[in-house]
Amino acid sequence: MGNDAALISADWGTTSLRLYLLAGDGTILDKRSAPQGMASLAKHEFASVLRELCAIWLERHGPLPALLSGMVGSRQGWVEVPYVSCPAGLLDHADKCARLEVEGFRSVQIAAGMDTNDAIGIPDVMRGEECQIFGALALMGLTSATFVLPGTHSKWVSVSGGRIVSFRTFMTGEVFAALKGHTILGRMMGEGASVEVADQGFARGVETAARSSACGEWLHRLFSVRTLGLMGKLSDEESADYLSGLLIGWELASGVGAGAREVILVGSAELTARYRRAAGILGIASSDAPQDCVCAGHMAIATAAGLIGPL
Amino acid sequence: MGNDAALISADWGTTSLRLYLLAGDGTILDKRSAPQGMASLAKHEFASVLRELCAIWLERHGPLPALLSGMVGSRQGWVEVPYVSCPAGLLDHADKCARLEVEGFRSVQIAAGMDTNDAIGIPDVMRGEECQIFGALALMGLTSATFVLPGTHSKWVSVSGGRIVSFRTFMTGEVFAALKGHTILGRMMGEGASVEVADQGFARGVETAARSSACGEWLHRLFSVRTLGLMGKLSDEESADYLSGLLIGWELASGVGAGAREVILVGSAELTARYRRAAGILGIASSDAPQDCVCAGHMAIATAAGLIGPL
Repeated sequence: MGNDAALISADWGTTSLRLYLLAGDGTILDKRSAPQGMASLAKHEFASVLRELCAIWLERHGPLPALLSGMVGSRQGWVEVPYVSCPAGLLDHADKCARLEVEGFRSVQIAAGMDTNDAIGIPDVMRGEECQIFGALALMGLTSATFVLPGTHSKWVSVSGGRIVSFRTFMTGEVFAALKGHTILGRMMGEGASVEVADQGFARGVETAARSSACGEWLHRLFSVRTLGLMGKLSDEESADYLSGLLIGWELASGVGAGAREVILVGSAELTARYRRAAGILGIASSDAPQDCVCAGHMAIATAAGLIGPL
Repeated sequence: MGNDAALISADWGTTSLRLYLLAGDGTILDKRSAPQGMASLAKHEFASVLRELCAIWLERHGPLPALLSGMVGSRQGWVEVPYVSCPAGLLDHADKCARLEVEGFRSVQIAAGMDTNDAIGIPDVMRGEECQIFGALALMGLTSATFVLPGTHSKWVSVSGGRIVSFRTFMTGEVFAALKGHTILGRMMGEGASVEVADQGFARGVETAARSSACGEWLHRLFSVRTLGLMGKLSDEESADYLSGLLIGWELASGVGAGAREVILVGSAELTARYRRAAGILGIASSDAPQDCVCAGHMAIATAAGLIGPL
């Protein structure tokens, strides 16, 4: 196989789609992204969108297998793929892909997401992040770690013995946007702070978060974004970063509360930088996973599922 | 004095204005409300709006004193009245009213709000609630209590020896609206639940809130509004009340964490009913303050300031 095209890998989320052409050794031969997220498509449109976006690769390399993950496998997506329950490893996921026949492809598989229930019976779900985790494990040669995937819905994923043993969602990104855009806290927020001012505001937020202990305290502490500004103790330029620091600080403090002393960050450089800074303030060790983990995860699942190589 | 008109009392907030005509013994002789909240007025408009709305009272009873409280005394209001710092009692407030000369009135006074700093140096502020508290103390014959004033920005106020000794703001109402209106949590929320279903959802929210211990946990627990729905464990009709229960539960749990075992609720019947129900679930004793406390508070401050009675 080596450097021949072996797999089309797709991270198909709610609002966008990223496609990769992978060689058998995992090398990314080509990639493209498109705005046709899951939310913009009717069920019958997925096949033609995928075929169109992959046409040049299929013409050149013949019918390839494709492995997709993300919200494409949700109830609102192409087909609903039942969740794999936690704990689960690579082989469980290789077993549970949904297989579709799509003209022009050797096969199209959609990876399953995961579900879990916590100690008090409350469910949690993810779709797509599990593939990033399997990729990070493969690329980093790890079998145990705590991963943090920051974003709209930040995910904390614990891996032990190569299996995903637990995970939790934190609504950090979406709550930040709702509070900044739709409460009094956003009214005084300036734009374009210098890097130093932004960092100062952010660090103050993280430190304040770390000093709030009881759970309901946050509904009170949030108001400090306003009162510190009102009293001239927080500039308009620092204010958004202070709120960001508060929220990320709470998320990390909760992770630490659950026992994590060291985390691996998976995500965009800009977001992981904020988490790395906050982790540093809170005394949590952190490191970064390689970029494009999802491709390595798809390759690992596709290999385990026997999708790669000669027919 | 007795039943003769003695004071015009005004609760002048950001979005509305409530006016009362009070007799010397505190009886409400007449009242009216108007949509001219502080936020809709330029500084030069306040005097004429007040005079116009009180014209019929002033014509009938001659030039009366008026006492106003609320955001009318803020930087964006009529005149900025400096905060009275915590702890403070009725006499401090009687001393610190801002006096304006307004044609047609014997005098117009604006009560000061309050500020405070917590143990880690973070400020808090209120404007108007202190008058409701002084009124509740007078009407209920109390000198020590913990008051909860639910709302957009819910206030917890501790009174000891007749003085307000500490207070805290919780952004419960505003956060509820932002999360319901502007995050994925609101997307599945139904309207018009039956009273039983609404109560069931609300109670589950309160109980879940009580089981979240670490402070950052809330960013994770919020996601249960979505996942419980996704898994068919929470109906769309229960969903908004479940979120309401989570938030009010956290607020109350934080109050309990701060030592309150018994609270007096001040506010509208609909909101205080929710807080009473949540307090019951959490084992916190609660009772209701009389309606229109603000009038009794204004009367107490006006009397202490010598504004009432013959010139």
